[in-house]
Amino acid sequence: TARIDVGATAIDKGGYRHFMAKEIAQQPVVLGDALSHYIKDGRIVLPEAVDFRDVDRLTLVGCGTAYYAAYVAKYWFERLAGLPCDVDVASEFRYREPPLSPRSWALFVSQSGETADTLAALHYCKDKVAKTVGVVNVGTSAIARDADIALPILAGVEVGVASTKAFTCQLAVLAVLALKAAADRGVMSPAELSAQIRDLTSVPSLVSQAVGAGDDCRRLADWLSEAQDVLFLGRGALFPIALEGALKLKEISYIHAEGYASGELKHGPIALIDRNVPVVVIAPTDPLFDKTVSNMQEVMARHGQVLLVSDAEGVEAGGEGAHAVLTMPSGGGAFAPIIYAIPMQFLAYHTAFAKGTDVDQPRNLAKSVTVE
Amino acid sequence: TARIDVGATAIDKGGYRHFMAKEIAQQPVVLGDALSHYIKDGRIVLPEAVDFRDVDRLTLVGCGTAYYAAYVAKYWFERLAGLPCDVDVASEFRYREPPLSPRSWALFVSQSGETADTLAALHYCKDKVAKTVGVVNVGTSAIARDADIALPILAGVEVGVASTKAFTCQLAVLAVLALKAAADRGVMSPAELSAQIRDLTSVPSLVSQAVGAGDDCRRLADWLSEAQDVLFLGRGALFPIALEGALKLKEISYIHAEGYASGELKHGPIALIDRNVPVVVIAPTDPLFDKTVSNMQEVMARHGQVLLVSDAEGVEAGGEGAHAVLTMPSGGGAFAPIIYAIPMQFLAYHTAFAKGTDVDQPRNLAKSVTVE
Repeated sequence: TARIDVGATAIDKGGYRHFMAKEIAQQPVVLGDALSHYIKDGRIVLPEAVDFRDVDRLTLVGCGTAYYAAYVAKYWFERLAGLPCDVDVASEFRYREPPLSPRSWALFVSQSGETADTLAALHYCKDKVAKTVGVVNVGTSAIARDADIALPILAGVEVGVASTKAFTCQLAVLAVLALKAAADRGVMSPAELSAQIRDLTSVPSLVSQAVGAGDDCRRLADWLSEAQDVLFLGRGALFPIALEGALKLKEISYIHAEGYASGELKHGPIALIDRNVPVVVIAPTDPLFDKTVSNMQEVMARHGQVLLVSDAEGVEAGGEGAHAVLTMPSGGGAFAPIIYAIPMQFLAYHTAFAKGTDVDQPRNLAKSVTVE
Repeated sequence: TARIDVGATAIDKGGYRHFMAKEIAQQPVVLGDALSHYIKDGRIVLPEAVDFRDVDRLTLVGCGTAYYAAYVAKYWFERLAGLPCDVDVASEFRYREPPLSPRSWALFVSQSGETADTLAALHYCKDKVAKTVGVVNVGTSAIARDADIALPILAGVEVGVASTKAFTCQLAVLAVLALKAAADRGVMSPAELSAQIRDLTSVPSLVSQAVGAGDDCRRLADWLSEAQDVLFLGRGALFPIALEGALKLKEISYIHAEGYASGELKHGPIALIDRNVPVVVIAPTDPLFDKTVSNMQEVMARHGQVLLVSDAEGVEAGGEGAHAVLTMPSGGGAFAPIIYAIPMQFLAYHTAFAKGTDVDQPRNLAKSVTVE
């Protein structure tokens, strides 16, 4: 296992009660650092080898939170760059022996860069695809070493077992890659590319606002900490954020939370809904907003207690009847999922704190899963 | 909405306490009917238009249980036929506007053939792919009408809201298609194809044995009905069976069950495990058996109560320390997931009955979801 050398000061809690709280708070800064590493003067700066012109398909692989980052990226690559993507958890991908196009690229997301299944998936792909890319936090890791191209996410050392800043920095780097793919493939005009880059570089300050609103999540912790079960719903690129929100809550509060694509609600999970099941609905104002709100109203009609997470316009339009609302800053365009990750982290953090669990070292979990 | 004309006798409970119980019991017969419709004298019989020779990729779409059938089929098409597959829930697929290859086929699975999101997904694909295929139970439905090729699953009328025989018949038809793809693409020798066809046609009698073992599930119902939360684990083509097992239990017993790929356990959900969380582990003796058993042992080390569902050999090799075991018949080869669907149905059925819920008409759910 690679070791990271850090000075003692780099890994103290810096006045925060937990590493996780510090790492959540660091996100505006580390996101800004990551983005300014890859975007300079409004232009994308990536190693020369990152050229998507002849790529016919992209395979994205990760585990846990890194898998959800890859899942968000699938929506970006497909929508922004018209590049078809497969996304899979590493433990499934490596054993299902998927047929791969020799013109495709395979991209591996891992905070530690040592995740056993993800590394094995990388080795599986090595001689089957045109290029392998590692998106990692630890630049000296096995995945960084074995991938054709290694892109650091520059999140800095992450101590909390439940990933926070590594997740959003993974998203930031993946967003840059999606825009590079759009540019290389000629599917986006220079003007639109500039507008997308502006949206992306606006994210750190919007994340800063979202971090500033963290206390609103603290006020919901008593309510959530009473729950046995919580559902998280989202559509499109917010669906993986719902999955991540549920995972975060599971990991540190031990509440059984589950994320669902909003449209799947009626195909089964709505049977769970009664007044004891909080439902977190992630719905920024976007073309799918009305559909998600309609799913939310079905939940409320079954006496489900809804927490609507949206922007001011969405809260105004859809918040009536909700048990609670969280208002996020508007903006960020396609990259809003990065912003909406923040309240998911705070909800888990404050709920776990209310329950008295060990936030930084949750039971049964390891920071880096280096065995199968 | 299309209506099915059925005589009164066709929709009585035939001596069973619930339609669901009757429909579970019917499976050996309807599976035999479905398979003998598509396999005659050991040869696959499909409409001439079903020719996979020039197909470069397959997109599989469904909702709820039908989505999980499509997910199992992805493993079959990839492994048996080397045909790369995408699988998605219809509500996400239709709005993410995925780039599609003009040489690809798109396949839509729906019991009613009227599922709104699945039908919209079909319409999205119509002029983007080479051919659309509907796999439906209702031959007069919108999806059957609008698809280029409609393949009936021949399950007969399904009344219980929680799908059982339609699921396994969907799997049977998808299995035939995967073998046809393997033959058309020349990736399987005639001898191997014959062996695979024998495995598939052996499934109804193996399902009959699994149905016969249903009482073993009844004895576990009191234990499961006490649970607030249940996890289902599987690997490979058994992973979607874990998802389906969890969905079934959710739908009719209102217990919060969740399915996970076994390899993802360590990346978060293992934090939930304590002695109050039953974990259903689906692990037939296959190349992934040892890995799944290793995940199971991690669960037991955290005092999780495991129900191991395996064949006699697997129960012998891995059953030690489990809270309970269910022994399934050996055999079926790649098509074992059809057999393992049966105990999932029985576990949900008996647990719901023990809880006193309305098995055939669970709260909040409709049989056919014809709105978004």
